[in-house]
Formats: sequence, structure tokens, C-alpha cells
Amino acid sequence: MSLITVGTMAFDAIETPFGKTDKIIGGSATYVAYAAANFVQPVQQVSIVGYDFPQEEMDELKSRGVQLEGVEIVADKKSFFWSGRYHEDMNSRDTLVTDLNVLADFNPQIPDSYQGAEFLMLGNLVPAIQLSVIKQMKKRPKLIVMDTMNFWMEVAMPDLKEVLKHVDLLMVNDAEARQLSGQFSLVKAAKSIMAMGPKYLIIKKGEHGALLFHGDNVFFAPALPLEEVFDPTGAGDTFAGGFIGHLAKTGDISFENMKRAIIVGSALASFCVEKFGPTRLKEVSKEDIDRRIEQFRQLVSFEIELV
Amino acid sequence: MSLITVGTMAFDAIETPFGKTDKIIGGSATYVAYAAANFVQPVQQVSIVGYDFPQEEMDELKSRGVQLEGVEIVADKKSFFWSGRYHEDMNSRDTLVTDLNVLADFNPQIPDSYQGAEFLMLGNLVPAIQLSVIKQMKKRPKLIVMDTMNFWMEVAMPDLKEVLKHVDLLMVNDAEARQLSGQFSLVKAAKSIMAMGPKYLIIKKGEHGALLFHGDNVFFAPALPLEEVFDPTGAGDTFAGGFIGHLAKTGDISFENMKRAIIVGSALASFCVEKFGPTRLKEVSKEDIDRRIEQFRQLVSFEIELV
Repeated sequence: MSLITVGTMAFDAIETPFGKTDKIIGGSATYVAYAAANFVQPVQQVSIVGYDFPQEEMDELKSRGVQLEGVEIVADKKSFFWSGRYHEDMNSRDTLVTDLNVLADFNPQIPDSYQGAEFLMLGNLVPAIQLSVIKQMKKRPKLIVMDTMNFWMEVAMPDLKEVLKHVDLLMVNDAEARQLSGQFSLVKAAKSIMAMGPKYLIIKKGEHGALLFHGDNVFFAPALPLEEVFDPTGAGDTFAGGFIGHLAKTGDISFENMKRAIIVGSALASFCVEKFGPTRLKEVSKEDIDRRIEQFRQLVSFEIELV
Repeated sequence: MSLITVGTMAFDAIETPFGKTDKIIGGSATYVAYAAANFVQPVQQVSIVGYDFPQEEMDELKSRGVQLEGVEIVADKKSFFWSGRYHEDMNSRDTLVTDLNVLADFNPQIPDSYQGAEFLMLGNLVPAIQLSVIKQMKKRPKLIVMDTMNFWMEVAMPDLKEVLKHVDLLMVNDAEARQLSGQFSLVKAAKSIMAMGPKYLIIKKGEHGALLFHGDNVFFAPALPLEEVFDPTGAGDTFAGGFIGHLAKTGDISFENMKRAIIVGSALASFCVEKFGPTRLKEVSKEDIDRRIEQFRQLVSFEIELV
């Protein structure tokens, strides 16, 4: 089943305690595409880039089944650029530079060839743009997943709340869930957010794993304990890509299958952080992914007799 | 199989965002005993109290199979008293008062009637005292578990490292594991700490669960997502008591059984935080515990086919 993913394709310059990069490929939709393409084709990309975005990267994405009809190329502007520095704990970072460039004009148009997609992944963008994408879909997708961030809660809360009424699943981190709901307890935050629209909520806790809420059901997936987290950039988008990729592959949006999808997403994210940018994602094979999923199973499996 | 637990029996005064207590019962050995006594009798308590420790509490413990021959009662001094205030996140707290009182003279003697115990739980105490207890055991217990804290790393690191050579399992929180090892990555920290002596390491992450390490094996148990964490005081000791109580009940110290023991400990800890002090621990039934263990199973269980 096909999957539309809307988000940024960008350049990032990253500093971590382990090293520093010049401009490398980044952007939420890039990570989603590399992760999801392991499971489903086509991945129908909607994004915007400038004249400087490398053709080799486009070719690489195409070779993996990513369609680029929905990627606008602006001939006289540069691609979105972000630069940041991570603190030692890798859970927090300082933004050094944000050059919107082409992103300032992003007004995504869903190509006719993408109509009918059953899965829609809305990356973190201006809420009004996310809503415009939903409204362009002639047939409502079977599952609409959205990401967002604290910034939109500060500057565009009414728009954000409007989009929330139209999506099935929201993915945020723990701080964002608390800010959006005004509740400190994540269980209470989840109830409050699900009352705003989404029937499903994923709260990402970085190295502490992720929680999936639906009604009174809760599922928890840990992050894999790693020797090194080399660069967390894109881990959340990679998680999202693995998650929705697995759902789109199976076509099954039951809670049980979402649990599996979270494990798949966590496995992909655990690769992403091993090298700078999407480098590691381009290297992993089906066998690598399966092996890592098995590690997740071992990490949490226990047998207990209640006597 | 019998279990010796060494630690404090005390009074606590606690402030949380939800309320405030006057002096209530506390102390690491108190929590360990209430938790472990659900699974094993006798629990052989080693501690020290003053003239002010209530006889009703002693009677309550005895009625649950806790032996008190090893609890010294000092007729002319007060019991250890601690007072603290939790921050909103409940993961950090300020100590307001620490009155050592009888604890300043604590020089535990293992009663003859306790000799031969197969399980030994060393609560957080001066490392030299922990070592003295180990040396008093005429037959080495099958499993020695110890807790400690950052304070001893600062003021008594050589003694602490000496005790570590004699124990089988160390239980610390994530910040303590990092401080003890000088490693930020918990996987690296675990390797480094296991090289100091303990073959097993449990890293407690509070609301983010707990990790068990042994050689190259890792197991992760989440904390149950709760609507309210009312008072986290004693949660770590309750976890320890449930953990070692399950091991002592079954007599099985395999890695597989330690996984179960961690789930049992996590279940007990999830009750502990629901009310001030050990109140909730005194209320829970076998059925309550089993139901909660089943919630843990549901929280992390997933089925995935690798195709």
C-alpha cells in the first residue's frame, strides 16, 4: 500500500561530543523515506529543495522506490539548512543556525499520481500546511500520522488543535506531550491529547523508549541500550518512517500491529544514531533489521508464572 | 530460603507536589522487608532504632514473618530521621533534614539465628559496614546484593570498591552508575562496573524503568506508566525487596529468573509510590500483585514475525 510522506529535505551541520560534520543531507522527509522504503514502495515524497540539493541523493532515493514528483525544486534558492550542537547527554541540543531558504515558500501540492494513498505521514511543519495537505486528499487515507513540536504550540496553538481533529495518530516527545496537554503525568497527558482528536498517541522518550496509547491500552517499547549514541539527528523521523512503513507494508492498523510497528521503528532508529546523518540507514540490510528486532525481543521478553 | 536484609529503619517527613507528611515510618530495610515478606519468610532484619520507634510497627513487621532479633533498640536515643522535598518531576529532591541519631552508632551484629541465610540484601550504608556484615557471615550466602549511593563514591570510594569485590549484584541508579564508572554510556558503565566485582548489575532509572546486565546479556523492564506518582520515597528499596524476595522464594539465581524478579520488584515499586511511605505496601494482596505483574506483561509484550 502506498505511503505519502510530507516534510523537509535539507542540509544539516552537526556537532556532537564525538565529532562534527560539514553540511550533510538531512530533513525529516529524508529520514522517513530511507526508513519506510525498507518496507513499502512507493514512498511518495512531498517536499521542497533548492538548486543545491544533490542529484545523487535524489537518485539514491529513487533507486529505493521513493517517488519524487511531489518534491518541488526551486532553481534560484538554497535548500533549508539547520545546524546544531548536542550536549553530552544527547537528549538536548542548541540550534546554531536555521536558514529557512526554500522552506519559507513551502506550499505543498499533492500530485494527482499520489491520490489514493492509504497512509499519510505529516512531518513536523507549520500546522496550517499540514492541514492543507489533508484537505488536498480526495480520498481520506486509512491512517494519518502527524509529528509536531513545541514551537507550534507557542506560536500556532489554535491551528495545531485544528489539525489534531483530522489526524489518527500524533507522535510527540514527552516534553511536547506535557506542554500540549498542560499535564505532567504522561498518562493524564495522553488522555487529554486523545480527547483533542487523535485516537492514538505515541510519546517518544529518546533513550528511554516510546509509549503507545489508545483508549485504555498502553504499550511500551524501550530504546536499545547502545554503547555509543553517535548522532541522534533524525532518530525520531527514522522511528516514524519505520513505524508507518511497517503499517503500510502490512495494511493492518490494529493496536497489536502498531506495537510491532513501534518495535520496527525503534530498531531503525537504533541504526540511525550510529553514524552521522542518514549514512547508517543507507547501509543496513533486511537481515540487519531482523537481527535488531530480535535483540528488542530479547531485551524485554520474560516468562512469569503467577502461582 | 531465608533472607537477611540490612539497612535503616527510620522516620521520614516528606513533601511532594501532592502533599506533606509529618513523621512517618521509613528506612531502606523497612521497605525491603514489607516488599520481600510477600514472597519469603523469614525476612531477617538487621537495623537500629531509637526509643521512639513504634512498637505497633515492629508488631506489624513480625506478623508478616519479619524477624527482629537483629534490630538493636537504643534506649536513650532517637531513631534516624530524614526529611526531603520532591520537585515536580519526582526524579529529584532536596534533603531538608538528616538527623543520624542512632545511625551514627550503627555497628550491625548478625545474630547466630540468622547464620546460614542464602540471600543477603545490603541496603545503602557506609561501605565499611556493608563489608563487616559480609565478613560476619560464616557461610557465604548464595547471593549478595548491595545498594549504595553517590555520597559514598565521594567520601569512601576505596572502601566502596573493596565491598564491590565481595558482592554478586550491585543496584544503583543511572547517575550513580555514571559516577562510579566515569562512563556516560550506560552500556559502557555496566561493563566497567562488572569488572570491579559484581557479576550482575541493575541500573534503576526511576520512571524510565530498570536495566539488568550480566556478561553480554541485557534485560530491560519499564516502570508502569501511572496517572500519579504520589510519593517516590522507598520505591528503590521496595524494588530491591521484591527482587530479592522473588529470588529467595524460588531459590533460583539464573539470569532468566532475575528477569522475573525485576518485574516483581517493579510491580511492588509501582504500588509503593501510590501513597505516602509504606502505607500502600501494607494494603496490597497477592491478587493485587499478580494483577499488576500481568499489566507489566501486557505493557511490553509483542509478537512479531520476521519474514
